[in-house]
Amino acid sequence: MSTKNPTACVLVIGNEVLSGRTQDANIRFLAVKLGELGIPVREVRVIPDIAQTIIDTVNEVRKKFTYVFTTGGIGPTHDDITSECIAAAFGVPWEPHPVAFARMEAAYKPGEFNAARQRMGTMPRGAKLIDNAMSVAPGFQMENVYVMAGVPRVMQSMFEWLAPHLEGGQKVEQRAVHATGLPEGIIADGLTAIQARYPDLDLGSYPYYRRTGNGVTLVAKGVSAADAEACIAEVTALILSLGRTPIPGEAPE
Amino acid sequence: MSTKNPTACVLVIGNEVLSGRTQDANIRFLAVKLGELGIPVREVRVIPDIAQTIIDTVNEVRKKFTYVFTTGGIGPTHDDITSECIAAAFGVPWEPHPVAFARMEAAYKPGEFNAARQRMGTMPRGAKLIDNAMSVAPGFQMENVYVMAGVPRVMQSMFEWLAPHLEGGQKVEQRAVHATGLPEGIIADGLTAIQARYPDLDLGSYPYYRRTGNGVTLVAKGVSAADAEACIAEVTALILSLGRTPIPGEAPE
Repeated sequence: MSTKNPTACVLVIGNEVLSGRTQDANIRFLAVKLGELGIPVREVRVIPDIAQTIIDTVNEVRKKFTYVFTTGGIGPTHDDITSECIAAAFGVPWEPHPVAFARMEAAYKPGEFNAARQRMGTMPRGAKLIDNAMSVAPGFQMENVYVMAGVPRVMQSMFEWLAPHLEGGQKVEQRAVHATGLPEGIIADGLTAIQARYPDLDLGSYPYYRRTGNGVTLVAKGVSAADAEACIAEVTALILSLGRTPIPGEAPE
Repeated sequence: MSTKNPTACVLVIGNEVLSGRTQDANIRFLAVKLGELGIPVREVRVIPDIAQTIIDTVNEVRKKFTYVFTTGGIGPTHDDITSECIAAAFGVPWEPHPVAFARMEAAYKPGEFNAARQRMGTMPRGAKLIDNAMSVAPGFQMENVYVMAGVPRVMQSMFEWLAPHLEGGQKVEQRAVHATGLPEGIIADGLTAIQARYPDLDLGSYPYYRRTGNGVTLVAKGVSAADAEACIAEVTALILSLGRTPIPGEAPE
């Protein structure tokens, strides 16, 4: 796999997102941050706390993508099984990590580093630590798999630590234009023709619904800023030709 | 697959969620609504607007799960390719749907039912329509695959129409208790023992972080309400034994 065009898969591990108990807040964060590093997220999977599912999924996606980022399942409770599943996926022992275990032992008061907490210092053999400012328990890396917490503020702290260590790819440039009062169905045929002239760009059409009016945002993405600009200039002319008013940039949220 | 214990997979199709442009709002809605019908969501995948990826993923998950629900990619623009990919996945022609096409033709003013909009009335041969109150363009069903819009209010309208037509399973009962000032690491060992005594229940531990204090919610889920109640009674006693105050129900958001 070329590291010049790296790809990422995000694995959200946990019954709480699948049951709808929790609104996931990690997918978008990772998608945006990884995109900024030139590491586009190409797939997300949300899977339950079932050992064989975790093991099989990790082994499938770590072969397919340059990077795999997991969130969830590394806490102290019985339903936190991500860490031992990663060990099983890599076929290595799950054992106290010399640095993490010692650090956690020192951080807790005598008698409080119990069996449950010791699980958080137990990792696949060979794991490299992912530190964070929020919790004494670190995440870890095994080859191209990065194992992080599910709690958003802890995950974000881990990712901020991790980001400078990731090898990014070409930055994606994007330009946008939007128009209120423009149904997608009217501009679609013209967009198809423009997209065909810019095969290296991804021209996306995103309808929006606002109290102030419905409309559509058109976004051109690619490694060439000049191409993205030329493409959006054509879209702008198309909007004018349809008798609507093009407004540069994305529609405000 | 037993319809007594049906399962669901949600496929979110679209670059906008993978790029972080859009915060997905469909996963949680479907997870909650399907859970209420006794059709637990067992996997979610977010995949890009790439034809072969859509086709392969649909063919993989429709064999694995009782139901597959897709969102996104059925609008009029060039990046809306879900419908023709479903046809390819099922190996059937993609052609004007007699009912949907005629209905849409009648709904638009003369000359406005253009090529782009006609795509929304074009479906895999044999598709059954999924109506909705928001848009003249319907979703559709092919065997156990339900193809819906990505725009949340349209998707929700389609799902509300669809829900009475789905064969649900056993309703999942749940009981909960929470305690502020209780770290997960302290209660974890006791929870493991309780979970072991209720193998038919799913006992989940969910830490929360509030201005008013951090704590943990414990949720027991299963088909037996009596078991869930007995389990949470044991968890309540465990919390008391740890010198904390158990509060029935989930922690308020």
